[in-house]
Amino acid sequence: QRKRLRDRFSLRIHVIRWIIFILIGIITALNACFVNIVIDLLSEQKYKFLKASVEQNVPVNGGDGDLALPYLWWLLLSVVPVAVGATMVTYIEPITAGSGIPQVKCYLNGVKVPRIVRIKTMAVKTIGVITTVVGGLAGGKEGPMIHAGAVVAAGISQGKSTTFVKDFRIFKAFRDDHEKRDFVLGGGAAGVAAAFGAPIGGMLFSLEEAASFWNQNLIWRTLIASIISSFTLNIVLSAYKGLENFTFTGLFNLGKFKEPLTFAYFELPIFMLFGVAGGLLGATWNALNTLINKVRRRFVPWKLGKVAEAVVISIIGVTLATIMIYFIDDCRPLDKERISYPVQLFCEDNEYNAVAALWFQTPEATVRALFHDEEGAHNIRTVGYFTLVYYFLACATFGLNVSLGVFIPTALVGAAWGRLVAMQFLDWFPDAHFLNPGKYALIGAAAHLGGVLRMTISLSVILMETTGAETSFFFPLIIALISAKWVGDYFNEGIYDMVIEESHAPILPWEPVPQYKGLTALEILSKPVVCIKLRDSAHYIYEVLLRCDHNGFPVVDDVKDNRRCEGRVCGIILRSQLIVILLKSLYVENKRFWLPETSIQTFREVYPRYPSIKSVRPLDRKENYTVDLSMFMNPSPVRVNNHDSVPKIFNIFRALGLRHMLVISNENRIAGIITRRDFIYK
Amino acid sequence: QRKRLRDRFSLRIHVIRWIIFILIGIITALNACFVNIVIDLLSEQKYKFLKASVEQNVPVNGGDGDLALPYLWWLLLSVVPVAVGATMVTYIEPITAGSGIPQVKCYLNGVKVPRIVRIKTMAVKTIGVITTVVGGLAGGKEGPMIHAGAVVAAGISQGKSTTFVKDFRIFKAFRDDHEKRDFVLGGGAAGVAAAFGAPIGGMLFSLEEAASFWNQNLIWRTLIASIISSFTLNIVLSAYKGLENFTFTGLFNLGKFKEPLTFAYFELPIFMLFGVAGGLLGATWNALNTLINKVRRRFVPWKLGKVAEAVVISIIGVTLATIMIYFIDDCRPLDKERISYPVQLFCEDNEYNAVAALWFQTPEATVRALFHDEEGAHNIRTVGYFTLVYYFLACATFGLNVSLGVFIPTALVGAAWGRLVAMQFLDWFPDAHFLNPGKYALIGAAAHLGGVLRMTISLSVILMETTGAETSFFFPLIIALISAKWVGDYFNEGIYDMVIEESHAPILPWEPVPQYKGLTALEILSKPVVCIKLRDSAHYIYEVLLRCDHNGFPVVDDVKDNRRCEGRVCGIILRSQLIVILLKSLYVENKRFWLPETSIQTFREVYPRYPSIKSVRPLDRKENYTVDLSMFMNPSPVRVNNHDSVPKIFNIFRALGLRHMLVISNENRIAGIITRRDFIYK
Repeated sequence: QRKRLRDRFSLRIHVIRWIIFILIGIITALNACFVNIVIDLLSEQKYKFLKASVEQNVPVNGGDGDLALPYLWWLLLSVVPVAVGATMVTYIEPITAGSGIPQVKCYLNGVKVPRIVRIKTMAVKTIGVITTVVGGLAGGKEGPMIHAGAVVAAGISQGKSTTFVKDFRIFKAFRDDHEKRDFVLGGGAAGVAAAFGAPIGGMLFSLEEAASFWNQNLIWRTLIASIISSFTLNIVLSAYKGLENFTFTGLFNLGKFKEPLTFAYFELPIFMLFGVAGGLLGATWNALNTLINKVRRRFVPWKLGKVAEAVVISIIGVTLATIMIYFIDDCRPLDKERISYPVQLFCEDNEYNAVAALWFQTPEATVRALFHDEEGAHNIRTVGYFTLVYYFLACATFGLNVSLGVFIPTALVGAAWGRLVAMQFLDWFPDAHFLNPGKYALIGAAAHLGGVLRMTISLSVILMETTGAETSFFFPLIIALISAKWVGDYFNEGIYDMVIEESHAPILPWEPVPQYKGLTALEILSKPVVCIKLRDSAHYIYEVLLRCDHNGFPVVDDVKDNRRCEGRVCGIILRSQLIVILLKSLYVENKRFWLPETSIQTFREVYPRYPSIKSVRPLDRKENYTVDLSMFMNPSPVRVNNHDSVPKIFNIFRALGLRHMLVISNENRIAGIITRRDFIYK
Repeated sequence: QRKRLRDRFSLRIHVIRWIIFILIGIITALNACFVNIVIDLLSEQKYKFLKASVEQNVPVNGGDGDLALPYLWWLLLSVVPVAVGATMVTYIEPITAGSGIPQVKCYLNGVKVPRIVRIKTMAVKTIGVITTVVGGLAGGKEGPMIHAGAVVAAGISQGKSTTFVKDFRIFKAFRDDHEKRDFVLGGGAAGVAAAFGAPIGGMLFSLEEAASFWNQNLIWRTLIASIISSFTLNIVLSAYKGLENFTFTGLFNLGKFKEPLTFAYFELPIFMLFGVAGGLLGATWNALNTLINKVRRRFVPWKLGKVAEAVVISIIGVTLATIMIYFIDDCRPLDKERISYPVQLFCEDNEYNAVAALWFQTPEATVRALFHDEEGAHNIRTVGYFTLVYYFLACATFGLNVSLGVFIPTALVGAAWGRLVAMQFLDWFPDAHFLNPGKYALIGAAAHLGGVLRMTISLSVILMETTGAETSFFFPLIIALISAKWVGDYFNEGIYDMVIEESHAPILPWEPVPQYKGLTALEILSKPVVCIKLRDSAHYIYEVLLRCDHNGFPVVDDVKDNRRCEGRVCGIILRSQLIVILLKSLYVENKRFWLPETSIQTFREVYPRYPSIKSVRPLDRKENYTVDLSMFMNPSPVRVNNHDSVPKIFNIFRALGLRHMLVISNENRIAGIITRRDFIYK
């Protein structure tokens, strides 16, 4: 009877968990649709207006006209959104600055990142990324979309929101760190799927970048979330653009290649060289970016300065673009189909300015153009200068106090130099027909992404899914990516890891650092440990909580002369639980009042933001209440022997996703405690 | 100085590890090439001969001719190879029977499977699978190729072979269970990649089916092995078939779809229904197959009988096929390009018999035909009877004492009924152009594979990679697979898991079984434990080793009255180490002789097949040698408290890939030992 009840309960939990993952997929996709559509509409207005303005003011045949006017308009239409976005990020929620992927990665690694999965964060991030992309900064919407997926996952799975101070009183069974983390992993995958239309890529991204603990069921749920997400996105965007025959086409955010991409064996070394170049350029980019951000943090600490900085970079970008458009003479026959906002400028009728075409669109559209434009669509000089300008622009942009992703600008720079190289060689050897500039733009993008981000498997799958490339083209992509990663890893780490390192988050690597080989737990543990007796006085607990901010306290018995820190370990109790015990006065002396109605729910309700100890009224000095922790504590904490080797306990810590681990002596007495910070090599 | 030395050493190990993974990829692919080419050549001879024989003996216009002759030839050409294969498997290496995937799965889970990764095993398996496929049994070469990859990996990484009694004295650093397991994982992935030409599928297959411990580096190496493998295979097979332009085309073992596969939204429920049908058919197939194999094990225990059984099934198969060919009248206009061995039989000139075309080729070629034949290539009746016959034939075949995989026959049955359904509906509604029989054959194959194997992610990726389908077609495939899996899981487990269950291998599930919730270590541990004192007499150790066959022995001190099983835990020592200690007489009393030249190498040399205790000469009764285990033992075994909860210790056990785990009391005294068998719910 009891067994069957338990089975039914666990089945219910199971089904609810699936439903939550599906909901995560749907809502993440809807958020992505919103971002996509708003950016689409606003950029359309912006570039349409600018095109009209240029055409009105261009001096035709020596007639008058003032090109300063469209330049000023461009400045205005760029600076205003950027300023709005930067202000929101800086003043409302500074954690939304940047891509969000490093923070999500930290969160999934087990680091507490305050406010990272709140709805307010998501709102600011969403508006922030729209303003950034519409403002024309060198940033993409992908990173923030992934972050948004994580927020959606955390919000739904907990059934409550701190921002709105609202508790829906559902999904209570999932209110613990491990469950929440699994959902956030699914949310991240759904975010990738929504950002790129790449369900397998989404799953792999989560696994490669984020997951710490491997589990078949988890990967399953993650995949479902990302499939549902890409499917929802596809339906909504198809509906928005006018459904054709109800046919599922996939999304192909970066455009589907018309011809299947093929390659010959002798191109493999070329792909490898591209990878090497990507690794070098990427490592340089990472180093430069980190340097710029260090300088930035040092010299512009005040808030208004951060907003001003974003505005300045925006102005520099527009100005450089204007100079390029003005001075480079690259006219091409007009092909209305392909170019969204063709600007004639100084070109003949029925021609358009190819430089302006590169700049007068969102970065994503530019990547698409570099992949799919025909062979003769650009001048070598145009692409050359463009590559140069964008490389440094992107470098100065990432790290500004605005919400933006680094994927699209990186892909853009890579696609630009990839195309440039192919064009140059095609110029020298016009018979080398294998030098398809679009294909080499894709390889360049892969190489540069590999050099900057250092992800490989998920990136290659994402690139394949988002360009609809053939599965056989997986091979060149992975060759370019792996070469780039290996070369880049020789110099420094991926950009996300560098951001994490700068933030000094105690993130755990995949494997224990070699310096820890041969050490034992004794050599890294922290002590003395603040312990609490199995039956301890409420006064003592209250004072301990006031005095120190540890998250968990070992519970000990067999304590002699009140030397608690030499007691024998019985279990562990969390700070939050102790606070609840004090708040609700769960003392031994008044047991008969609370015992019948106290359950695990009493403790779950306050998750994850339990009240501060300051909210507990100081206890009356005269009354001598006792707390019996044997009812509340976790009686089987993970404990290791003080002679255990560090690599071994590291593996346990990592695999189980622990926050703390008790070190005991041979007599089961407390020797110390090991937390995540103890594993970070100083 | 020392740190730098250690860094260099660890870098060297790192590089060697990569090289081994690359070698695994190459050699696995070469083996796959060998199998492919030999099967190709032999089947060509066989079916060419049969075709000629039919055409000579067919009674034309009432003339004489005897179709019994080609039937007998066919019988002969099927029975002889099958008999050879079955004899080899039965008499030389019985472990090579079947697909090999269940065994590899057990091995990777940590179960000791004797002789599974020996070169002899691989040789028998390779020849076995060739004979099976050439003999025309309902089996594929994929499973054995994956097994072969695992053997290659184990062989190379250990740098020695037991079959050839040869130790190359290289790669000694990798001689432990964990390292070997990681390599075998890579080998399995390389095998999948070689079998299907699916590198991403290979990696995902390893992860979904096999890996227990997630690690970014491991997945990386696995991917490299499978990429190298599919690349090598592609080069060699292209060279064999005549290289065209040095162009990399991918392999597409199951044929590339000429048109990109598209689908409309209203087809999604259809895919789901296919999935449900696949789940039902698959679950039935699994149950039936398990039943047949139970009967088989019970009534045919002797070796000759097993060979005879394979011959009988072969005869039944050929006979059923002959009956179908003889009685079903399905003539189609001849198209020389597509049909390899067109048989005219009773058809008009310039026509061929479509039934014979289905049977006169390897099963893999039949799957290809079902995917890619045009709409009108078969009669509904032909495909209907073919489905029926093959379903039961495959069911009777898997479990015979021959080497064969279950993937291709399963895909074949699924493709057949998928195509059948589409043909039938197209017959009823000729205007429903979306009912492309090839597409629905692919969906049917996915559904049936999902129903039988219950893998989803890797299967869908493999199907995509092996048919060159578009990434957007991932969606219908996964819908069919997931529906099939869910429906099938309601009734029973996947076929591989059922095979494992029948073999009673103590395989650990991903998560602790719900029955263990709430239990503590005390309730599942085994005791009393056979312990050894820190300084114990050689006599005692010798006797313990003779008396019991445990793999590890806790080392204890503080022993009172020789009650070792109540001692305090200091470490653990393996059986193999104790045997080496006795064999080499590493006693305290003669320390000065051996101490200088004894190192970890002394113990590694005997890995993995250390001598039996029987090879140690009985010790002289008179001499009282002592062994000091503190030098040899592992001083930090994983120990858990006897009050720890079972789910928690299960996670530790699973994540660290342990073989045993000591349970200690609060006083660090031994309470019991937990091995893999204790976690299996009885």
